[in-house]
Amino acid sequence: MSQDKVKTRIAILGASGYTGVELLRMLAHHPNAEIVALTADRQAGKDIGTVFPHLLIRSLPKLVQINEVDWSKVDLVFCCLPHGTTQEVIAGLPKHLRILDLSADFRLADPAVYAKWYGHAHRAVALQDEAVYGLTEVMRHAISSARLVAVPGCYPTGAQLPLIPLIKAAVIDADDIVIDAKSGVTGAGRAAKETSLFAEVSEGINAYGVANHRHMPEIEQGLSRAAGRPIAVSFTPHLMPMNRGILSTIYVRYANGATLADLRRALEEAYGDEAFVHVLPAGSMPATHHVRGSNLCLIGLAQDRLSGRAIIISALDNLVKGASGQAIQDMNVMLGLDESTGLQQEPLFP
Amino acid sequence: MSQDKVKTRIAILGASGYTGVELLRMLAHHPNAEIVALTADRQAGKDIGTVFPHLLIRSLPKLVQINEVDWSKVDLVFCCLPHGTTQEVIAGLPKHLRILDLSADFRLADPAVYAKWYGHAHRAVALQDEAVYGLTEVMRHAISSARLVAVPGCYPTGAQLPLIPLIKAAVIDADDIVIDAKSGVTGAGRAAKETSLFAEVSEGINAYGVANHRHMPEIEQGLSRAAGRPIAVSFTPHLMPMNRGILSTIYVRYANGATLADLRRALEEAYGDEAFVHVLPAGSMPATHHVRGSNLCLIGLAQDRLSGRAIIISALDNLVKGASGQAIQDMNVMLGLDESTGLQQEPLFP
Amino acid sequence: MSQDKVKTRIAILGASGYTGVELLRMLAHHPNAEIVALTADRQAGKDIGTVFPHLLIRSLPKLVQINEVDWSKVDLVFCCLPHGTTQEVIAGLPKHLRILDLSADFRLADPAVYAKWYGHAHRAVALQDEAVYGLTEVMRHAISSARLVAVPGCYPTGAQLPLIPLIKAAVIDADDIVIDAKSGVTGAGRAAKETSLFAEVSEGINAYGVANHRHMPEIEQGLSRAAGRPIAVSFTPHLMPMNRGILSTIYVRYANGATLADLRRALEEAYGDEAFVHVLPAGSMPATHHVRGSNLCLIGLAQDRLSGRAIIISALDNLVKGASGQAIQDMNVMLGLDESTGLQQEPLFP
Amino acid sequence: MSQDKVKTRIAILGASGYTGVELLRMLAHHPNAEIVALTADRQAGKDIGTVFPHLLIRSLPKLVQINEVDWSKVDLVFCCLPHGTTQEVIAGLPKHLRILDLSADFRLADPAVYAKWYGHAHRAVALQDEAVYGLTEVMRHAISSARLVAVPGCYPTGAQLPLIPLIKAAVIDADDIVIDAKSGVTGAGRAAKETSLFAEVSEGINAYGVANHRHMPEIEQGLSRAAGRPIAVSFTPHLMPMNRGILSTIYVRYANGATLADLRRALEEAYGDEAFVHVLPAGSMPATHHVRGSNLCLIGLAQDRLSGRAIIISALDNLVKGASGQAIQDMNVMLGLDESTGLQQEPLFP
Repeated sequence: MSQDKVKTRIAILGASGYTGVELLRMLAHHPNAEIVALTADRQAGKDIGTVFPHLLIRSLPKLVQINEVDWSKVDLVFCCLPHGTTQEVIAGLPKHLRILDLSADFRLADPAVYAKWYGHAHRAVALQDEAVYGLTEVMRHAISSARLVAVPGCYPTGAQLPLIPLIKAAVIDADDIVIDAKSGVTGAGRAAKETSLFAEVSEGINAYGVANHRHMPEIEQGLSRAAGRPIAVSFTPHLMPMNRGILSTIYVRYANGATLADLRRALEEAYGDEAFVHVLPAGSMPATHHVRGSNLCLIGLAQDRLSGRAIIISALDNLVKGASGQAIQDMNVMLGLDESTGLQQEPLFP
Repeated sequence: MSQDKVKTRIAILGASGYTGVELLRMLAHHPNAEIVALTADRQAGKDIGTVFPHLLIRSLPKLVQINEVDWSKVDLVFCCLPHGTTQEVIAGLPKHLRILDLSADFRLADPAVYAKWYGHAHRAVALQDEAVYGLTEVMRHAISSARLVAVPGCYPTGAQLPLIPLIKAAVIDADDIVIDAKSGVTGAGRAAKETSLFAEVSEGINAYGVANHRHMPEIEQGLSRAAGRPIAVSFTPHLMPMNRGILSTIYVRYANGATLADLRRALEEAYGDEAFVHVLPAGSMPATHHVRGSNLCLIGLAQDRLSGRAIIISALDNLVKGASGQAIQDMNVMLGLDESTGLQQEPLFP
Repeated sequence: MSQDKVKTRIAILGASGYTGVELLRMLAHHPNAEIVALTADRQAGKDIGTVFPHLLIRSLPKLVQINEVDWSKVDLVFCCLPHGTTQEVIAGLPKHLRILDLSADFRLADPAVYAKWYGHAHRAVALQDEAVYGLTEVMRHAISSARLVAVPGCYPTGAQLPLIPLIKAAVIDADDIVIDAKSGVTGAGRAAKETSLFAEVSEGINAYGVANHRHMPEIEQGLSRAAGRPIAVSFTPHLMPMNRGILSTIYVRYANGATLADLRRALEEAYGDEAFVHVLPAGSMPATHHVRGSNLCLIGLAQDRLSGRAIIISALDNLVKGASGQAIQDMNVMLGLDESTGLQQEPLFP
Repeated sequence: MSQDKVKTRIAILGASGYTGVELLRMLAHHPNAEIVALTADRQAGKDIGTVFPHLLIRSLPKLVQINEVDWSKVDLVFCCLPHGTTQEVIAGLPKHLRILDLSADFRLADPAVYAKWYGHAHRAVALQDEAVYGLTEVMRHAISSARLVAVPGCYPTGAQLPLIPLIKAAVIDADDIVIDAKSGVTGAGRAAKETSLFAEVSEGINAYGVANHRHMPEIEQGLSRAAGRPIAVSFTPHLMPMNRGILSTIYVRYANGATLADLRRALEEAYGDEAFVHVLPAGSMPATHHVRGSNLCLIGLAQDRLSGRAIIISALDNLVKGASGQAIQDMNVMLGLDESTGLQQEPLFP
């Protein structure tokens, strides 16, 4: 496919949220993307510039309701709707559409696990079965031919990218993994909630969903696939005062006589040729500052003070590699484009 | 000039500061720019990735001292050195170089004004005379043939862009202008100063340099040129807890029977065809959130409650349109390129 | 009255908001205050510690509905209810209660002005007439015998404290006052609104309610009383990323041949003996950092660069001197206590 | 001792830093404290109000050099000097003084451990031997008669308070403790360092001193004392954008058949009668917001998803219970006063 000529016609469902506007930012200069429809049910009829004033000066379609979209003029859909309602919307879409879903609805492959964590039976089980998990570096081959891709969650991306190669290489004890994650506020979306208010978030930090967060089964699903057997993890997310970014500090125990050098080798072999996932040199640890606004995931590692243990830290931008950026990366794979197309935004620092 | 083929060979002097790293971000995918030298005297010998870890994964020249640069391989220089030392450094550079200076050293055309505000005689008066003031939208023609461009300060850009057309159109009283500006912290650079510490800045705001800030004569110089006579302004800068952005709230009095509609018309005529300066529709006022990371300057205006008065608000990113972005825009003008080349970064929101 | 023995029995209506919890913080060690009832209609039945976890370890009454309060056991009420609903609630309270109302409902003395700015006729006009405006340093005498005190708004406190003495002394032109105010987020309360979300507020600043903010008539009412004739002002509030604090930068023109020294003298005469309002020495300007958590209002002043003009800056904590602290100060006046009782919290810096 | 009459005469050495100014805040209304001397070598001769403008309105001694203090008029010293220089200063003080040292110089009892982590032999070994470790709730008895108290570090306080009772009760495996701590910026002091700049800290988080932080041996010393044998821990501190607060998320493994209930019981028995250390009810986890500005340390605990493991979270304000507040608490113990005297500041939220 010539990257210069063909434009894929794109609709974004739920364009008035943070993952929607982030898609608009990143697709702005994507040479193969043409945005033809934006939906936002409660804001239908408005210009997107009234919802996001920084878009006032761009030329974009008006916001419409989903049922107003002329699907015959759309090739591909990014779905940025809330968890739970997404599955029925997607089930109702025409079959010629390729779909990248940024909600959690199709991430868990096992209907029983879904039902347990979300409190109700899945309402589109066939689609759940069809959906491909969109962790690009790991699932690239399956994504290329997928019709429906479940874009991974932000925490699961930050946890799985470093851990999957280590588990596959059997250099860590998969039964003794502690993940302590710190996230910016946009992970909670744009919904007006007391817990997301500036005055509740700024100047402090707290853990939430302790031992009970819905991203936990998604992490465990990915690690279990890597291990070939069920894996459970300790995962504690924290909410802190920044807009973007997830830092995952991961505490592991060596297995099978491995050393830190073996862990480093496993990660470098996995990601040495990747455009977006990078293992930092010894002595360097990533900060979320280094990835803000970019599709990068940086990984650092160090020997722990406790012998037999290592500390692994990953950093990504939850709205980019943890959501909209990875979605575009998956789209590029689906369309046979260079994976980096439209994704070369540099980190914004400071 | 074909935009595809020719690469201008660029050196950045003082690359370890915030304007330097911002040039690196924005030039990363500039099709006509090739970065061939980076200097940082105290950090010479290091990789730039040790100074800015998010650059670890890019391939860039090592930091060197200024006297180590092979100038025969350089076409154009961005100078990001501190005020005061810049003038002698630039005076010593070979004459084939075209130079964009981001310091204040060549912004004030009048040696007496410079001496008054900086406390010493200018040490390169001939260059001061040669330098062209790089407020792109206003000085485009002169910039195109300049050898040395003095890139405007951040506050002066935010103040002059809305005020110059209004003064030229004689729709406001040029003797009754109050500019209340609010700036992010990067305006003070990366120097380790107590007043720039997180704990001193966060959770608060304060005015500084009240009635005495060095950007005041620069603003007055530009407004005086527009008015054709000496103009003085009231200008009060404030430091507030954000990384980037300047919001300038400007209080003016109508002149010559003008109304708000006349002010709007003057601004729209001045900027209607511009890529980066935009006048917002009635009812909208800009926020710095809307310009973060972009080269935009947004302007809004409203009738004041006091009859005979208007309020004008401009927003820009001090590191982009207020520094490195405008410098690249000027470079594009100097090189005969499309002014937007390499500058199409969308605002990062949230 | 002996300060050691008598405890005033206090109810706080609307205790689950920010002004309510701030009253609880400041009254915690007030020797004459006993908190006997807390109401919060939607949270009735809960412990306050479930609404504000930092109160988990204190012993406080459960939250109840307003109609569950036994008024015979209450002497004094702080009313922290939303604007608009407050007037009917207060109209229905028993007459033996003394009331400090932190809403805007009784601040505007003129029913026509109220109706214009709030869009409906006042529903308790007799009370509106009875209410005393609680700007302590100015209205102390009337407050001492008041039954109903309308505690001033945060912006109006920051604007009136510096301006009233200057207008009374006729040293400034009351028809040429520009107030540029910058506020922290808690001024918008604890309601879950998109505009108060962390991701919408952090890393930016914007003006709002330009030429149209409801605090404007309150400011004008106070200045008009001082001037003895109607005064209008230019007032532009800005929202910025901090929890607490208002900085008001006020631009004025000298009148009647006055100089900066005359302005200073007028302010020092007005506030020389005050516990909470302080005029800073020449060369010092207040920052909101200097007042955080305290009941202070600091005032600085400087000659403007424009001849004939001065710049005056005031700083206060919007939740303390701008709300709950001033309410307690008013209560102390009403009860004949030392005005500083319970209000000696030092600023929290950093 | 009558709490009303006797005033202890206090000198603060190094009063121009954050722990110094925090002592001034908390001692402002301490009924038994009289501040008679403030030192700050580089700022000697200045009023403290020029260093901390919010102190402009208080009446405090001028800053002097240490050798200018008349020690005959001083009873007790708070020493807020930098690590390394403190030991010689304290060695040179008259012996009648009781001393609370907030530096790290006397925290490590073993000279060999000190030499290893600080890179030089201790220069006051006899004092090192005499010094009592000031973790108030644990060392109260020894503190009461101490002449020299080494006030614990902020991270060590947050780690030891929850862990010591659990290790003493033998309900956790002391060889499998992972401490993931998140700290505000004031922990790094007021020194002008690039890593403490607003623009480097805001909008991000990073780990630092991974497997190598100097607070690690201090934590291990305290846990080893509790266990009666050498204990090593995994400890990773993180720097995040807030002024104050440390949240320590601690991952432990049950020992000896214990359950979460046993852990809770051990903590409640240890702290049930304490004024400042509180164990939160099941279902509640502390946030740093809940302790800001107060001397509290809040502890929460939960069963981990991994069977056999628990998660314990502690929150404190690093400048209060992690430094100046605990120092005053220790002083109260030394003087035979109620431990809470002068320390009843409520948390400042929001």
